[in-house]
Amino acid sequence: MADKRPIGVFDSGLGGLTVVKEIIKELPNEDIVYFGDTGRVPYGGRSVDTIKKYALQDEKFLLSHDVKLIVAACGTVSSVASDIGNALPVPYFEVVSHASMAAVNATKNGKIAVIGTNATVKSGQHKATILKENPSLSVINCACPLFVPLVEEGWYSENDTIVLETVRRYLKPIIDFGADTLILGCTHYPVLSKALLRVLGDNVTLINAGTTTAKAIKKYIYCHNLENQNGGEHRFFVSDKPDYFKEQASVLLEKDIDMCKVEKVDIGNL
Amino acid sequence: MADKRPIGVFDSGLGGLTVVKEIIKELPNEDIVYFGDTGRVPYGGRSVDTIKKYALQDEKFLLSHDVKLIVAACGTVSSVASDIGNALPVPYFEVVSHASMAAVNATKNGKIAVIGTNATVKSGQHKATILKENPSLSVINCACPLFVPLVEEGWYSENDTIVLETVRRYLKPIIDFGADTLILGCTHYPVLSKALLRVLGDNVTLINAGTTTAKAIKKYIYCHNLENQNGGEHRFFVSDKPDYFKEQASVLLEKDIDMCKVEKVDIGNL
Repeated sequence: MADKRPIGVFDSGLGGLTVVKEIIKELPNEDIVYFGDTGRVPYGGRSVDTIKKYALQDEKFLLSHDVKLIVAACGTVSSVASDIGNALPVPYFEVVSHASMAAVNATKNGKIAVIGTNATVKSGQHKATILKENPSLSVINCACPLFVPLVEEGWYSENDTIVLETVRRYLKPIIDFGADTLILGCTHYPVLSKALLRVLGDNVTLINAGTTTAKAIKKYIYCHNLENQNGGEHRFFVSDKPDYFKEQASVLLEKDIDMCKVEKVDIGNL
Repeated sequence: MADKRPIGVFDSGLGGLTVVKEIIKELPNEDIVYFGDTGRVPYGGRSVDTIKKYALQDEKFLLSHDVKLIVAACGTVSSVASDIGNALPVPYFEVVSHASMAAVNATKNGKIAVIGTNATVKSGQHKATILKENPSLSVINCACPLFVPLVEEGWYSENDTIVLETVRRYLKPIIDFGADTLILGCTHYPVLSKALLRVLGDNVTLINAGTTTAKAIKKYIYCHNLENQNGGEHRFFVSDKPDYFKEQASVLLEKDIDMCKVEKVDIGNL
């Protein structure tokens, strides 16, 4: 048995492409439909009600493409709207649970740090998941609202003084706390990995939510006989600026995108 | 004769409060209705079509409050959608024209610089206005996309190393060009004035679009007998996070807001 329907992935913008990259690596024969809400990005500073409203519209769009499962490749949606997958007619994956479990398994000194947007950190979702698994662990949260604008500006090099100084300022409480494991709670952050490690030192383990979530999706698809053996087509939709997509995709997806496959959607009216 | 209807002001978010501040200074007896599109901020990285669509919805909301004139207190809307006021049933003010004229009058060496969002700089609206007035002047444009996130994070002090380094990087072409006049083409930027002057030196004149536009509005209201002599009530509407408004208002408006006056609007459905 097989299921040729595509995997649906959405994000507030283009950060979710780091998750798509990992899904492609794990499941190269799956078709993927990606939606990035570039007309309303970023979600990270918005209210819970607004984030839920936007996420429901994003899911509705993916369902209209007959997807076999939906991935919220957005740290903010995954954290703030943890119940948003409950009413879906297809399986739902988010980027908090598997990253949190990976951190529980990775830490040696029992000290885990989480970085993300304001909304993600305020939700406390990673911390709750980690402590439910192992109440003896310690967790620190730090919001890093400038990381996404820095990445979008192309300023993410580990040799950039502004990047390093911003990382140092945001991560000071984490260094003082002595965490040995850092969850990248926003899907833009893997691009900053080298800069983060330069400040934290190589002894700290970075948890990329895209990697852990892609492995979980692969397992689910295999165990439920949902695999597509002859696919591999990737379609990309955005709510604004399809021309900007190509530029960012080269950084976040590390792959050139055939422009014909990027289409614009009027998401506000869904 | 008098006109007791309020002045309507809108912005992509809360940066427009720096313009409201100047309007209150010039016209303390006018009622003001402000709308900040905090559910879809920022506009500066979006496409022309999307910016126009959002701006029309913002204007529609203000018109529903029976305003006597509308102010686009947003550098991006003013630059990109210069025709957006044409079809309005009330007079329309934007923040490009008067700031550009003030720069033409202020420059001594004939070299003017403009800073703003990506969309503002790409539009070339300031440059076109300046050169139409005086074709012998030279104009340089620089997009500074990180300035708004920095201000929103509360990082705008002239003693902050990240702020100064970011200002230095963005303004290098302006310093090399030798401009003696700098138009702050985004309504968030007046908050960065001290940092900008620290990098540029005190010999450079900063043009605050809020100040120049408020003076133009005052003149128009006086000349057309539209003044309100007994008002002074200010109402604020946002499309998300009314609780965040108070915090930002203390920076941008430099005034505490009675929270009862901040209301939430569902702008996407207008």
